[in-house]
Amino acid sequence: MSRRLFESLATTEPLDDLFSDASMLAAMLRFESALARVEARLGVIPAAAADAIERAADPAAFDAAAIARAARASGTITQPLVEMLLARVRDANPDAATFVHWGATSQDVSDTALVLCLARAAAILAADHSRLRAGLRRTSERHAGTVMLARTLMQPAPPTTFGLKAAGWYGAVTRTGTRMMDAFGEASVLQFGGASGTLAALGSNGATVAAALAKELDLGLPDAPWHSHRDRLATLVAACGVYVGAIGKIARDVALLMQFEVAEAAEPGGGSSTMPHKRNPAGCAVALAAATRVPGLVADVLAGMPQEHERGLGNWHAEAVNVVSIVQATGAALAAIAGVIEGLGVDSARMRANIAATGGLVFAEKAMMLLAPKLGREAAAQHIKNAMNTASREGQSFLTALGAIPEVTAALSAAELISLDAPEQYLGCAEEFRRKLLDAE
Amino acid sequence: MSRRLFESLATTEPLDDLFSDASMLAAMLRFESALARVEARLGVIPAAAADAIERAADPAAFDAAAIARAARASGTITQPLVEMLLARVRDANPDAATFVHWGATSQDVSDTALVLCLARAAAILAADHSRLRAGLRRTSERHAGTVMLARTLMQPAPPTTFGLKAAGWYGAVTRTGTRMMDAFGEASVLQFGGASGTLAALGSNGATVAAALAKELDLGLPDAPWHSHRDRLATLVAACGVYVGAIGKIARDVALLMQFEVAEAAEPGGGSSTMPHKRNPAGCAVALAAATRVPGLVADVLAGMPQEHERGLGNWHAEAVNVVSIVQATGAALAAIAGVIEGLGVDSARMRANIAATGGLVFAEKAMMLLAPKLGREAAAQHIKNAMNTASREGQSFLTALGAIPEVTAALSAAELISLDAPEQYLGCAEEFRRKLLDAE
Amino acid sequence: MSRRLFESLATTEPLDDLFSDASMLAAMLRFESALARVEARLGVIPAAAADAIERAADPAAFDAAAIARAARASGTITQPLVEMLLARVRDANPDAATFVHWGATSQDVSDTALVLCLARAAAILAADHSRLRAGLRRTSERHAGTVMLARTLMQPAPPTTFGLKAAGWYGAVTRTGTRMMDAFGEASVLQFGGASGTLAALGSNGATVAAALAKELDLGLPDAPWHSHRDRLATLVAACGVYVGAIGKIARDVALLMQFEVAEAAEPGGGSSTMPHKRNPAGCAVALAAATRVPGLVADVLAGMPQEHERGLGNWHAEAVNVVSIVQATGAALAAIAGVIEGLGVDSARMRANIAATGGLVFAEKAMMLLAPKLGREAAAQHIKNAMNTASREGQSFLTALGAIPEVTAALSAAELISLDAPEQYLGCAEEFRRKLLDAE
Amino acid sequence: MSRRLFESLATTEPLDDLFSDASMLAAMLRFESALARVEARLGVIPAAAADAIERAADPAAFDAAAIARAARASGTITQPLVEMLLARVRDANPDAATFVHWGATSQDVSDTALVLCLARAAAILAADHSRLRAGLRRTSERHAGTVMLARTLMQPAPPTTFGLKAAGWYGAVTRTGTRMMDAFGEASVLQFGGASGTLAALGSNGATVAAALAKELDLGLPDAPWHSHRDRLATLVAACGVYVGAIGKIARDVALLMQFEVAEAAEPGGGSSTMPHKRNPAGCAVALAAATRVPGLVADVLAGMPQEHERGLGNWHAEAVNVVSIVQATGAALAAIAGVIEGLGVDSARMRANIAATGGLVFAEKAMMLLAPKLGREAAAQHIKNAMNTASREGQSFLTALGAIPEVTAALSAAELISLDAPEQYLGCAEEFRRKLLDAE
Repeated sequence: MSRRLFESLATTEPLDDLFSDASMLAAMLRFESALARVEARLGVIPAAAADAIERAADPAAFDAAAIARAARASGTITQPLVEMLLARVRDANPDAATFVHWGATSQDVSDTALVLCLARAAAILAADHSRLRAGLRRTSERHAGTVMLARTLMQPAPPTTFGLKAAGWYGAVTRTGTRMMDAFGEASVLQFGGASGTLAALGSNGATVAAALAKELDLGLPDAPWHSHRDRLATLVAACGVYVGAIGKIARDVALLMQFEVAEAAEPGGGSSTMPHKRNPAGCAVALAAATRVPGLVADVLAGMPQEHERGLGNWHAEAVNVVSIVQATGAALAAIAGVIEGLGVDSARMRANIAATGGLVFAEKAMMLLAPKLGREAAAQHIKNAMNTASREGQSFLTALGAIPEVTAALSAAELISLDAPEQYLGCAEEFRRKLLDAE
Repeated sequence: MSRRLFESLATTEPLDDLFSDASMLAAMLRFESALARVEARLGVIPAAAADAIERAADPAAFDAAAIARAARASGTITQPLVEMLLARVRDANPDAATFVHWGATSQDVSDTALVLCLARAAAILAADHSRLRAGLRRTSERHAGTVMLARTLMQPAPPTTFGLKAAGWYGAVTRTGTRMMDAFGEASVLQFGGASGTLAALGSNGATVAAALAKELDLGLPDAPWHSHRDRLATLVAACGVYVGAIGKIARDVALLMQFEVAEAAEPGGGSSTMPHKRNPAGCAVALAAATRVPGLVADVLAGMPQEHERGLGNWHAEAVNVVSIVQATGAALAAIAGVIEGLGVDSARMRANIAATGGLVFAEKAMMLLAPKLGREAAAQHIKNAMNTASREGQSFLTALGAIPEVTAALSAAELISLDAPEQYLGCAEEFRRKLLDAE
Repeated sequence: MSRRLFESLATTEPLDDLFSDASMLAAMLRFESALARVEARLGVIPAAAADAIERAADPAAFDAAAIARAARASGTITQPLVEMLLARVRDANPDAATFVHWGATSQDVSDTALVLCLARAAAILAADHSRLRAGLRRTSERHAGTVMLARTLMQPAPPTTFGLKAAGWYGAVTRTGTRMMDAFGEASVLQFGGASGTLAALGSNGATVAAALAKELDLGLPDAPWHSHRDRLATLVAACGVYVGAIGKIARDVALLMQFEVAEAAEPGGGSSTMPHKRNPAGCAVALAAATRVPGLVADVLAGMPQEHERGLGNWHAEAVNVVSIVQATGAALAAIAGVIEGLGVDSARMRANIAATGGLVFAEKAMMLLAPKLGREAAAQHIKNAMNTASREGQSFLTALGAIPEVTAALSAAELISLDAPEQYLGCAEEFRRKLLDAE
Repeated sequence: MSRRLFESLATTEPLDDLFSDASMLAAMLRFESALARVEARLGVIPAAAADAIERAADPAAFDAAAIARAARASGTITQPLVEMLLARVRDANPDAATFVHWGATSQDVSDTALVLCLARAAAILAADHSRLRAGLRRTSERHAGTVMLARTLMQPAPPTTFGLKAAGWYGAVTRTGTRMMDAFGEASVLQFGGASGTLAALGSNGATVAAALAKELDLGLPDAPWHSHRDRLATLVAACGVYVGAIGKIARDVALLMQFEVAEAAEPGGGSSTMPHKRNPAGCAVALAAATRVPGLVADVLAGMPQEHERGLGNWHAEAVNVVSIVQATGAALAAIAGVIEGLGVDSARMRANIAATGGLVFAEKAMMLLAPKLGREAAAQHIKNAMNTASREGQSFLTALGAIPEVTAALSAAELISLDAPEQYLGCAEEFRRKLLDAE
């Protein structure tokens, strides 16, 4: 269930659900239950207390709106949650109430709950990431020989292949996705330090409880609590930012190719309410929106890193909402672009036609490489310039104009001249680069 | 009703409600109704059609979750909404369906809906802004004569008054609040341009309909549609960013004053789940969280400004969620800091004691200003340095140590010497500055 | 003289010079000289001291590199400068040395020097701003009747005029430029508060000296020193950010129009080292680079606003370099786009041809507006869809296909049908909007 | 030599030199020389041409200011540089001129030059990074047993050790430094793709030349040119951003500890021009300035990632200046904080005294953990609250007040009671965490 219309494009349904109140409550209470269970197992608290706590920790019994309201006064969502839990345990078993949240601090709960959700987010992203990579690889293989204009600074350049373009996207998505997934892994660590990050309230049991709790929650155990050391989360959101940038690059390219005047590719996008003929690049819009939105959010997380002493003031409080927004935007961009790539229409004939429409001008560089060693750089440049001017003035192709210059025909073989504007014969290492990009992991 | 736990501190209840799905739906449908009403009044569409459209445009009948889901495919929330509206009108009056959304484009609806919500947000913020200003003014007046350490680079400096400090906050809040409120006013303009921003679908009626629609919705009428010219919104969010910065400065100062070792001020903040004695700067945390979070969001809006041609791709789609987040964070910071200031405890005795605790060292500058003209800069500096060293070594006050230097006592009158470390006698223009800050509008 | 190759595109020569070491030294020493002069005039310091200070304050005698080196140790550039000044005064007139920097604090000097440079920057920007506005106005007037495709979401839409497009640019540049110039004005205020912002060192003379100093330096006099209240500078850089966004939008549009496949406009841009035929959008590149770079810098300034007590630690130290970078980037974008607009080539024939190339599909909306009231929305939509499919399948124009549908010909007059795809007859309020945009100030 | 006063704190001398014009020219010409040498070796161009090019490529002969000026027109610094090189080669050996820049594109030169400088920057940073880590380790070991207040939300909390605090800094610096150094390594790859990223101009020799060129320049060879795939640089600057955040956290903590009222630590910082007694946290200021400045610059690089097709417009042009600013700020922060840590004064007695000054209130949690299991949570909480109130009212210690409550003395042993406020006996896992942090790599 999507909760906010104006955020519709900034998340996906699974990621919206993942960070819903129900899901956050469940994650926080999972921490409290696991803590009690583990402490009972280790003899730190009575088994009966753990039982009572686990029974009371039923997410459905908690009122998220009331917690949010209380949080605005106390500055934390955990404290009202713990008080509700305490009240429920006390009702059922007064003795057990003593051991609710035993040895933990508020931040242990909210940080670990966030991490638990992030670990699940990683799985959601991983599935779409695989889908995207497969789609890109397929596209690249299918179009290994499809020639098209390269475009630099948004102007035509000598040809490339659509296979290489797709492989470039694949390479960037693969590199940045690997880093992002690694960062999710590194960030999936327990937060458990108690009031001051020393677990002092648990006396000599602290480290044992921490290790068991990490295991119980299927999280990594960090060297120490990280209440005010946020580098793992910062690294994660930065990796999301780079990944979204790589996705945004695909969307930028596709949107440019989809222009009516270019018409080399098309996503099976949405229509318009008043222009029924129009195919909109809706998937690209979602991906580019994320690429517009995520960078500033990453900056906010980085700016919040210098957190005061053992728990930051304000900077920490700004973090979770930024992290969630980033992960949701990443997922939205990824899902959208995976759909774009899987359904991408490619018009190879138009790609070739767009090369031809330049009248051979994009092969001026090739002419230069052939002529300069024979005629000298300046003479070659002058002939080429003359040919381009003639071509432009007379409406000829560059090849025709160049072929009318005696010095040029003297310098080039007929085969060289006639193949000058054949795209397939001026692709250099395109295929070799394409292969290497697809072969890399 | 707060909808997201992890965002609890990033908004307020009224602002959460304002941007809820119910509220957004209502605003969008208000546009559609007003458009129909105005067009009927001007004879552009039949009156019966307008009646049917108004009746069908009942927010309660629309399914926000379904709209959000459809939006992810089409890239817009308006299109599914219009389709639902169309279906409802068609059911009631098939002829009227023709005139649903007549002459408008999707962006007209969503932009104007956002603007309608922003106009209401302005009113919410204005109330808290007045409250904050009144609180700051009161605080400044009450503490016009309360001396305290100035602190530069987080180190003690010659004294100031708490009245001037509060007046400085007041001045910044007033200046930036005025700019923000102006920006809300400038941004409160209708969006209505049709498919291409020319209102071509309305033929010669376009401008008349637009003017009437603006009046109907109580919005300003811009010179032209602004589909891809987002400077009014960008100016608004930037003004929010500056305002939040001014609020964050108050929070930063209060949090520093609240430190146990300083203890000059205290907000009536929240407790801790495990440290019952602790008074947390919860309001400052909310304000500083906004000051951490808003800057990057502002950057995102600025980065999205270069929108393509007559409607941007992606950059526009990222905007609304950023704007809403910024306005909500601004409101959260404002409400929190207004509460902090209204309930601020100030310990004037401790302020004076903290001056005294420096042993007079912060009056070294004053000693310099008195001695240098008489003894020369270098000799004066040397005596002061000696006195400070003596004071530090012997555990004396700076005044005592200085008074033991014959050249000093020869140069200063007894009155000058004895009053050297009287805070009240080294306040310069503090009161004059305070008054000018409070008098400015 | 440009000092940094890798920053070549991020500034202009005049703005590079303005923030050069020579210029900064001159501005800082201008403060020291003016302070001495004013204090002497008011009898605060001896006239001879002021004379000696003014003579010593010769920028050419100061070693910027040594100051920079010392600044890294002391955290301020003013302190080593004052020490150099002191040494020079002492050499010339030992008694005068006492009165160097009399009553001021380091931040007074560096802040005021920055403001003095900003005031000069405003003049530089104002000239180019006028040039840009004149160019846009001229372009808009010249092309009031030049029809072209509107493009929404990078897809073709019903026509607009290039005159309206240019007027839209003009409107945004005018609105945002006015705000920016106002912000420069508001930021052009003296910084003078002494160690704690009270001018205590000047006793009862503080306010008088401040007022005279402001006048001497031709700066505004703020209500109070603003050592840790940075809202005026923050407002200024934010206004620059919005202005650059408006310029970036022009550059984005021009770059899209310059694409080989679109070819509707061209800047007289730079060539390529290997592709001699290529005209690069070099001016757009500079403008878009600024639009990419400025948003994050604005965020940095906003994030630095919550400065501690009477002088911030680190946040203040980050500010000047950000402010200078923003102002330089703004000037670079402005100069570049002014050049682009002044030399912009516009191909009206190609604009019209690109409309025609859509085969009339962009007039589907017009057909809908004509047919729906007569045939009902659904029937009209169905006929239009059929016509579009036929047109696409048969290679006909949309008009031809539509004209072959009996229900359509029955519903429309011959005049209506024949003019359906005439761009001039579907421009709505384009000219009215254009005029209003140009008439606004 | 530092070139810009207002940037003094934003770089270091070695990093300023590294990105000076001389250094950039040298790096660009190193690319041209190496390319010629390698191509001659492989028989692609004549050996004599390579000799002539190498001789002409003398940085001292090039005019950086002229190049910068030309770059503003052409949008690239490489093109004017290549033209100057061409002219010099032509003067010496006209035939050789043909083979200048043979097969390369402008971006190959400027990107590779940037990478060459970054590789050298990595070495500079690595040295300071080692120094910082050694200093932190030493500090942590020395203060393994130094008790101090933990502080959460800027309020006192149960004790920790300064050794653990320093180890926390060490851990974050180590983790983030490792990631940053890895990112430097990954980014140290050749850029060489020719006009369209296919090396077409080199025919079948492209890949061989590329491999040899990478080797010649001691850079990695990427799978393919990365003209518009900027993820390696984006990852690098993001890693710098996270690293700077970790450093900023140290600076934040030290600055807080240096406050006069806290006085637990001190850097040997700079003095003040008017307050000779004052020790400023100058190193912390530099580090915090970087932590304020870098986040937005990182956002700018991320926002620039969606680069168009085979070479981006504007986004690419904004990148180098951002990357250089980030790397310089990182180096400035690192050098400053390394100095701070190496010279850090620590006042262990004051740390202990500050714990004592809380009157035992920070041990309320410990009291709770002891009493709750025996008296029940509510009764324990009530007794503790009463004791705190009594302590506050009577000016007693918390321990004294608690010891006067019969239920408490009945529940606790004398040993438990008497050691309740002994910091050493409430440190939990502090030492274990410390050791694990130092042992990690």
